[in-house]
Amino acid sequence: MAKNITSQTLQRLPLYLSYLMSLEKSGNISATAIAEALGLNDVQVRKDLASVSRGGRPRTGYVTFELISDIGRFLGFQNHDGVVVAGMGNFGKSMLGFDGFSEYGFDVVCGFDCNESIVGEKINSKPILHISELKNFCRERNIKIGIITVPENSAQEVCDMMTDSGIVYILNFASVHLNVPRGVRVHNENIPISLAMLARRSFFENDT
Amino acid sequence: MAKNITSQTLQRLPLYLSYLMSLEKSGNISATAIAEALGLNDVQVRKDLASVSRGGRPRTGYVTFELISDIGRFLGFQNHDGVVVAGMGNFGKSMLGFDGFSEYGFDVVCGFDCNESIVGEKINSKPILHISELKNFCRERNIKIGIITVPENSAQEVCDMMTDSGIVYILNFASVHLNVPRGVRVHNENIPISLAMLARRSFFENDT
Repeated sequence: MAKNITSQTLQRLPLYLSYLMSLEKSGNISATAIAEALGLNDVQVRKDLASVSRGGRPRTGYVTFELISDIGRFLGFQNHDGVVVAGMGNFGKSMLGFDGFSEYGFDVVCGFDCNESIVGEKINSKPILHISELKNFCRERNIKIGIITVPENSAQEVCDMMTDSGIVYILNFASVHLNVPRGVRVHNENIPISLAMLARRSFFENDT
Repeated sequence: MAKNITSQTLQRLPLYLSYLMSLEKSGNISATAIAEALGLNDVQVRKDLASVSRGGRPRTGYVTFELISDIGRFLGFQNHDGVVVAGMGNFGKSMLGFDGFSEYGFDVVCGFDCNESIVGEKINSKPILHISELKNFCRERNIKIGIITVPENSAQEVCDMMTDSGIVYILNFASVHLNVPRGVRVHNENIPISLAMLARRSFFENDT
């Protein structure tokens, strides 16, 4: 069933998951109740859930923890994919310190920086290495995922080092467009823009 | 023209902006060149840009800085909207330290925490106050936007304090569903989920 899912469904799955995680795990939950709580169309929610889980029962709905597990498995949350972080400012440090990645199947294993004064430190038992060690580190451990939290003016250079190290998925928090070789996928996270989308949307919202 | 924009266009505008910011500002840029650089359909890009800027000329395209300014104005980036941040871990601190909000029309003015040992500190000239002062602070300054970077188990409580303080836009980094009164808008940012969408998408990608 997994292969026929649309990217719209895919984008809603994390919403469901985040809502389900806030509920009593041993209880039951219906598609209708989820739709209501999240302000979504209940036919849509029913369809989305049916595409990733066979656990739905008439009247009772889903057992919450089973549905969490089905969505999680679908999204690959049982994996252990190594992730490195380049840029050890407060933001980068928070990525090393944050334990929430593991439940999504990611192991943030190491931080990198060019600042000698923090190289050698550990955060949350994770070492900070010099950026010059990135390539060897990633190649040896077959790391495919990198997070960029360096300043804008060094983001492209760090990106080049990452792709040269075998990294093919880059989550970029620097607000610059990154040029990458074919086959490498970048997702740009721009927090001020998220804020603008949230706080100014009513200004131009007459579609939904 | 602003009122007829679709949310799809709205979601692409930041992409254009981020790309344009990486270019020489005094040069020219065509919709076709932008489409190529970002891997988008050029008819779509042309339409998007025409909906926010009248600066497009046949053959030469747009003057880069004018187009940046038009998109920026459209997205409200000339505003000065006060923003508060609750939760002064490394992540919350990075929000105070980050200067990139101002170019998007946001002033992050203050951080809040319940940890007495950091209350009174300043980061990037911005004070950290005790969370009990949130309500007075926001009411006095008419703050409408809050960022939640507290642990999951206190996110709802902090959210309630924010909405009680007159905040109506909440950017939530805690991975829990927040219940808010009618009229309050929440945007959930879940970084591990962004990573999953990026790194695992090929697993179920046969639509676009």
